[in-house]
Amino acid sequence: MSVTLSATLAANEDIERRRRAGERVLHLAFGEAGLPVHPALRDKLAAASERNGYGPVAGAPGLRAAAAGYWERRGLVTDPELVVCGPGSKPLLYGLLMAIGGDIVLPMPSWVSYAAQADLVGSRPILVPAPPGEGGVPDPDLVAAEVHLARAQGRTVRSVLVTLPDNPTGRLATPESIRRLVDIARELDLVIISDEIYRDLMHDPALPYTSPADLAPERTIITTGLSKNLALGGWRIGVARLPAGAHTLRRQLLAVASEIWSAPAAPVQEAAAYAFNEPMELTARIALSRRLHGTVARSVYERFAEVGASVPEPQGGFYLYPDLSHLRLGGSAEITKILLEEHGIGVLPGHAFGDDPAAARMRVAVSLLYGETAEQRMAALTSHDPLRLPWIADALDHLSTGLKELTLVRH
Amino acid sequence: MSVTLSATLAANEDIERRRRAGERVLHLAFGEAGLPVHPALRDKLAAASERNGYGPVAGAPGLRAAAAGYWERRGLVTDPELVVCGPGSKPLLYGLLMAIGGDIVLPMPSWVSYAAQADLVGSRPILVPAPPGEGGVPDPDLVAAEVHLARAQGRTVRSVLVTLPDNPTGRLATPESIRRLVDIARELDLVIISDEIYRDLMHDPALPYTSPADLAPERTIITTGLSKNLALGGWRIGVARLPAGAHTLRRQLLAVASEIWSAPAAPVQEAAAYAFNEPMELTARIALSRRLHGTVARSVYERFAEVGASVPEPQGGFYLYPDLSHLRLGGSAEITKILLEEHGIGVLPGHAFGDDPAAARMRVAVSLLYGETAEQRMAALTSHDPLRLPWIADALDHLSTGLKELTLVRH
Repeated sequence: MSVTLSATLAANEDIERRRRAGERVLHLAFGEAGLPVHPALRDKLAAASERNGYGPVAGAPGLRAAAAGYWERRGLVTDPELVVCGPGSKPLLYGLLMAIGGDIVLPMPSWVSYAAQADLVGSRPILVPAPPGEGGVPDPDLVAAEVHLARAQGRTVRSVLVTLPDNPTGRLATPESIRRLVDIARELDLVIISDEIYRDLMHDPALPYTSPADLAPERTIITTGLSKNLALGGWRIGVARLPAGAHTLRRQLLAVASEIWSAPAAPVQEAAAYAFNEPMELTARIALSRRLHGTVARSVYERFAEVGASVPEPQGGFYLYPDLSHLRLGGSAEITKILLEEHGIGVLPGHAFGDDPAAARMRVAVSLLYGETAEQRMAALTSHDPLRLPWIADALDHLSTGLKELTLVRH
Repeated sequence: MSVTLSATLAANEDIERRRRAGERVLHLAFGEAGLPVHPALRDKLAAASERNGYGPVAGAPGLRAAAAGYWERRGLVTDPELVVCGPGSKPLLYGLLMAIGGDIVLPMPSWVSYAAQADLVGSRPILVPAPPGEGGVPDPDLVAAEVHLARAQGRTVRSVLVTLPDNPTGRLATPESIRRLVDIARELDLVIISDEIYRDLMHDPALPYTSPADLAPERTIITTGLSKNLALGGWRIGVARLPAGAHTLRRQLLAVASEIWSAPAAPVQEAAAYAFNEPMELTARIALSRRLHGTVARSVYERFAEVGASVPEPQGGFYLYPDLSHLRLGGSAEITKILLEEHGIGVLPGHAFGDDPAAARMRVAVSLLYGETAEQRMAALTSHDPLRLPWIADALDHLSTGLKELTLVRH
């Protein structure tokens, strides 16, 4: 097992250090939703503060039932007995990798922690690029060949992962790509892990969304949480929906959970149960968040496009994934270093997401632009024109200026 | 890696199932403190409910400083930079095993999760019995031989663990045993992990307490939490104190933490910072808890002693570890099965703690006797004679009757 501090953590530490030293650095490197807690959730947490028992490892029955309802409203019949809660979807993913075992197929690029977790549990990821223009799904045409090759080398490949919509690209895999991936997964007998933590943050909710669980309920695990749609990252709550009949997997996951984290914080579970029941005040909050993420992501997209970056248009969440290779300033490490040190723009290099280090790609998170205080963030959330709020307009100007300087001076 | 549901979890599920079916079962199998949250902590949690950012993986600076102060008041100079917080001390122990690597020496018996965690990270535990009459510390006279043997077989042994006071025996290792263990650990270059989660629950606070960190600060890691002293198990908060200068270990632990659990729930961290500052209202609460645990544990001890069990007198926490081998009813699996099925007494078998399955030893947790409701539990906590409270008296009668029946019928 190799244990090294993640590139994300190191990059974020560097940005924080510069900011403390008085440098003006635009923080576009961290995947926090950047919005306040809804007051109804604060009330629920306070009301549940007497909850101090360990409770079931799988999570409180009320939370599991609420999560099942959440999925039922999205067309997925769900047995609450096959819902497992954890302190974030991250520990659930870790426990799942451990319980499933074997190597895993990941999209390239994909969220930094998938490969890092695989490494911790002694599993080797097989990185497969997404189909052109897509993100979050390994190209189905390439998966079979890669898995056959790995198996021919004696490796055990048991699972494939998708992120819908994607971190880092902000793209949603098409229903057609999901359908093809599901066919391949069936053919190769792979479990599909579908990380749908950004699902409620599709900028255009009318865009067709297909979960592999719609097509292959017998082999798909869905993970989600409240860190992104309701900005509860710091509360640490996630849920997993296991395939029908997966009682062995459930017991294995619970065995891991019981030895590592026990259960999510009990008061948080109560508030989360309220959230997964989707009361109108919270769906309204999520709609506002979606609008804000979409508006700011699009504006940042335009600024990158303006300087000639190759950048897929973001469709969900609060990330985009521009490519500045045309500037010929080096790969992802070099470009992010120049952006940070010479232009005060902090982003994460594409290679942290498993991408080719020679390409000048980077992940840009827009959610820390909404403000430094709860007041600014609420103003951004409720504004009809958040781009005109002075602190957001300033940040976007800083970005544009930095990108233009980078382009003019170097090109 | 083998993944199986822990014996504890299975035993507790069985007890719960019987209770739901209407059987009267005395629940002496679960290590929950069984007491309400102090209102001041509820207030702090509610006041911190706006905290929704991920925050530092090591924990909030205020919490780390408070934990450092907690240790300073116990004579241990502590750098807050070497304090790492986690969602319980359990995940911290897991992360530490992973970061340290190699095999680990454990006392036999010892808490179920140590060996289970070692198994999950691919480490093999070396079980060494405690010195006669003690618990929670591997006999220093035996450790060197076992480690030399393991090393001669090519194994890498890197650490040794102690539990002070102990779960399951309720005993505190003597200062002399700790001193001798520390000498051996130095000689063998072993890291010492000292699980001190029951430290504040010594029934007699005047009993001399030696932490290995007092004697070997350069190689001792202490873990603790608020699950036991303040009954906050369900809130999931723990802290680790790393040895002076252990910056590499710290970075490795943070690397693991960042990929598995990120950080404890942010509002819980705020309340925990308040608790580790040890305001008078909370030290008074802990003093009441200690008195209650001691009173009930002693009464349960007497009832086991009365039927001829060999049982070490409990000194801390809320457990005892009787041996009913003299009844010749079989080993730990048989005796716990008979107690549960024929006498409605649910305890955990000694073999779940790594003990010899042939011995009829079991862990008895007394903390679920305090009541079913917050009102009953508060009454128990504040009563000068909790043994006379009807629900506690009834439970103790049930226990005595069961033990006497067991002894009379079978002996």
